[in-house]
Amino acid sequence: MEVQMETNIHGGGDGNGSFMARCRQPLCSALDRLRSSGVGFAGKLAKIARDDPRRVAHSVKVGLALTLVSVLYYVTPLFNGFGVSTLWAVLTVVVVMEYTVGGTLSKGLNRAFATLVAGFIAVGAHQVANRCGEKGEPILLAVFVFLLASAATFSRFIPEVKARYDYGVTIFILTFSLVAVSSYRVEDLTKLAHQRFSTIVVGVFICLCTTIFVFPVWAGEDLHKLAAGNLDKLAEFLEGIESECFGENAASENLENKAFLQVYKSVLNSKASEDSLCNFAKWEPGHGKFSFRHPWSQYQKLGALCRQCASSMEALASYVTTLTKSQYPEANPELCLKVRTTCGEMSSHSAKALSELSSAIRTMTIPSPTNNHMSAAIKAANSLRSELSEDEDLLQVMHVAVIASLLSDLVTQIKKITESVDNLARLACFKNPEKTQKDVIIGIKS
Amino acid sequence: MEVQMETNIHGGGDGNGSFMARCRQPLCSALDRLRSSGVGFAGKLAKIARDDPRRVAHSVKVGLALTLVSVLYYVTPLFNGFGVSTLWAVLTVVVVMEYTVGGTLSKGLNRAFATLVAGFIAVGAHQVANRCGEKGEPILLAVFVFLLASAATFSRFIPEVKARYDYGVTIFILTFSLVAVSSYRVEDLTKLAHQRFSTIVVGVFICLCTTIFVFPVWAGEDLHKLAAGNLDKLAEFLEGIESECFGENAASENLENKAFLQVYKSVLNSKASEDSLCNFAKWEPGHGKFSFRHPWSQYQKLGALCRQCASSMEALASYVTTLTKSQYPEANPELCLKVRTTCGEMSSHSAKALSELSSAIRTMTIPSPTNNHMSAAIKAANSLRSELSEDEDLLQVMHVAVIASLLSDLVTQIKKITESVDNLARLACFKNPEKTQKDVIIGIKS
Repeated sequence: MEVQMETNIHGGGDGNGSFMARCRQPLCSALDRLRSSGVGFAGKLAKIARDDPRRVAHSVKVGLALTLVSVLYYVTPLFNGFGVSTLWAVLTVVVVMEYTVGGTLSKGLNRAFATLVAGFIAVGAHQVANRCGEKGEPILLAVFVFLLASAATFSRFIPEVKARYDYGVTIFILTFSLVAVSSYRVEDLTKLAHQRFSTIVVGVFICLCTTIFVFPVWAGEDLHKLAAGNLDKLAEFLEGIESECFGENAASENLENKAFLQVYKSVLNSKASEDSLCNFAKWEPGHGKFSFRHPWSQYQKLGALCRQCASSMEALASYVTTLTKSQYPEANPELCLKVRTTCGEMSSHSAKALSELSSAIRTMTIPSPTNNHMSAAIKAANSLRSELSEDEDLLQVMHVAVIASLLSDLVTQIKKITESVDNLARLACFKNPEKTQKDVIIGIKS
Repeated sequence: MEVQMETNIHGGGDGNGSFMARCRQPLCSALDRLRSSGVGFAGKLAKIARDDPRRVAHSVKVGLALTLVSVLYYVTPLFNGFGVSTLWAVLTVVVVMEYTVGGTLSKGLNRAFATLVAGFIAVGAHQVANRCGEKGEPILLAVFVFLLASAATFSRFIPEVKARYDYGVTIFILTFSLVAVSSYRVEDLTKLAHQRFSTIVVGVFICLCTTIFVFPVWAGEDLHKLAAGNLDKLAEFLEGIESECFGENAASENLENKAFLQVYKSVLNSKASEDSLCNFAKWEPGHGKFSFRHPWSQYQKLGALCRQCASSMEALASYVTTLTKSQYPEANPELCLKVRTTCGEMSSHSAKALSELSSAIRTMTIPSPTNNHMSAAIKAANSLRSELSEDEDLLQVMHVAVIASLLSDLVTQIKKITESVDNLARLACFKNPEKTQKDVIIGIKS
């Protein structure tokens, strides 16, 4: 009754009161859910923007470039010059605008150059086809389109072409087909080709101006920061190892959920973004501290070494999670203490060496040739080796022990793979292996 | 003289003989170089085709689809129906045709759907702008384009949108801008929008027919094969370890250049292609042994485990290269032999277990629940542990030894990173760190 009274008050006391009361609660809860999911979505968007405010700038830049290009269309004198082809400028802006300057340059130059080359070839093909009469022309044009499109598509499988000119080849096929096909009906082909090319150049020009002069995002700078960031992450892992496993205040609890044990994982997966940034960076002109011929591929080599290092850290991480302080000083306490101290030294010095390298990259100063921390880490590693090599037996047992240990670790991982395949088999309804004669007989007997 | 005589004979003995003789050699060598590089390039192309003959088929398919769509243009009755918009069908074919069916479907559906939605919104925007008079219309249209393009570009940073609808958003921006901008001048906007949409649908339809019915390449099938292939590679590594390090005929030479020690590396870098194949596979209809709702994301989970396994193999590989047969049975021969035998068992059984899983995936049969090899490998690992746990001291020393050993391995890797950064600093001409007061004084004194 209370609900109904309340409804009547709010609903103005009309005859629909009880109907509204019935509808109100589901409606409210639906609205609540909608609102909460809306708030959640807005929060997500805000987080994306906060994580990298350049994303907002990029979005505004795309809007700006498109508005600029549409001015071309609205302002009548310009429109008269370019004709309907102005639409190609709009199209160019939409597909060429990329997040980084290098990306936009790569796509823009590919597009402009491919259009030019394909246009010339297509006009030539038209001249040839034109001489074959009314009936021969479309057939010959179709054959040309088939041959060139097939050949160009195949060239995209060449790794070098794929890496730098993939977009250009697409545009080559596109322009050639469009011009060749239109040439069958359009009278003044050269004018059409000229208009189309100029509008594309205008589109590319607007894109480049917007990306370079309004809050530019340089792929090279991002690649540079990525390299320094990866070194920092590796350093963070080693610092964590030092303080949590070998330090004064080494905790004795399980380390599995510690953040530092996850930090190397993003380094392992950095290859794809590194490769694309490096590819774009090569297109960029000199900017800030980077010259045009900055050795970008060197960053790829450094990245490969960092990923290899992260791989080893993954192996190490699976061991330290089961290492607790209380566990080992009981047996052979003297040696264990010594090994532990050396391990602590190795990790702390390595971490500092990595941090030093990272800050050398960030500030673009030559890292000190006598990197003290690096030599200290190497010294610790060597002293461990020489310490152990006094006991020849122990050194050799250790080597075998490491291999055996890594192998038994592998067995555990392969067990996980088995479970994953079992899961797949269940979910994908794999068929049962064909029953052998024996199974069938057992089946009959039982 | 001999050269000249020969030239005279070949050159017909005319007065230019000596001039030709002078030119001939550089010309010949240039031609030779051209020919040899041409042969090299042809060989490279042949290898690309041989490696995967489906690439040739794909190239022919693109040519075929384009030829089909240009027929639309040449055959006059069809052309009259669609008008100049036929060019949009050509454009659609060029940009939508992808190597895999899933890729084409993903792009085609994105394109068709985005064009439809953007077209409707643009026509609505045109109606609104139309009411603002001659002067207000272009301004309002420009504002609409700016707002929608910015918002849509920002939505591309949402990971879920990026993964599946990136191309759709691009086409949305494109279509909206094109229709909104054209609406300012074109009289019959609905007819234009209708024509454009139908030509795009025709383009997508031709693409889909060609990719699905002419030698289809299914992303799902490729993903399935990639998973099985990765398992095979891991198995190959373990087989190599078994036969080269622990087997009867274990070689005593350095293993560094053995092929099996490189085989896991391609597994480490398989993430990018796996992710894109999985994304495309989700768009594909049921085909062959795969239903529409095949659990494709399960392959990503399996892939992550395989990559982790390959990471551990990388760590192991750096140890076994320095392990030679002659090295270790001297110290503690009894234990070493035992450990060695168990290592051999672990690796051979694990390799067989992996091969079994791979063949279960290939044939899509449920892997036997009592995978004998897996249990044998686990048994070997456990027996090693229990063997060693009898000697409590040894077990604990071993654990510490493994960690120390991995850490000193890391130090070596970090040394390589240092060298790589030094290289970068040299090539990129990093500046010298600012000289301290002391350096300057020494400089003056000396």
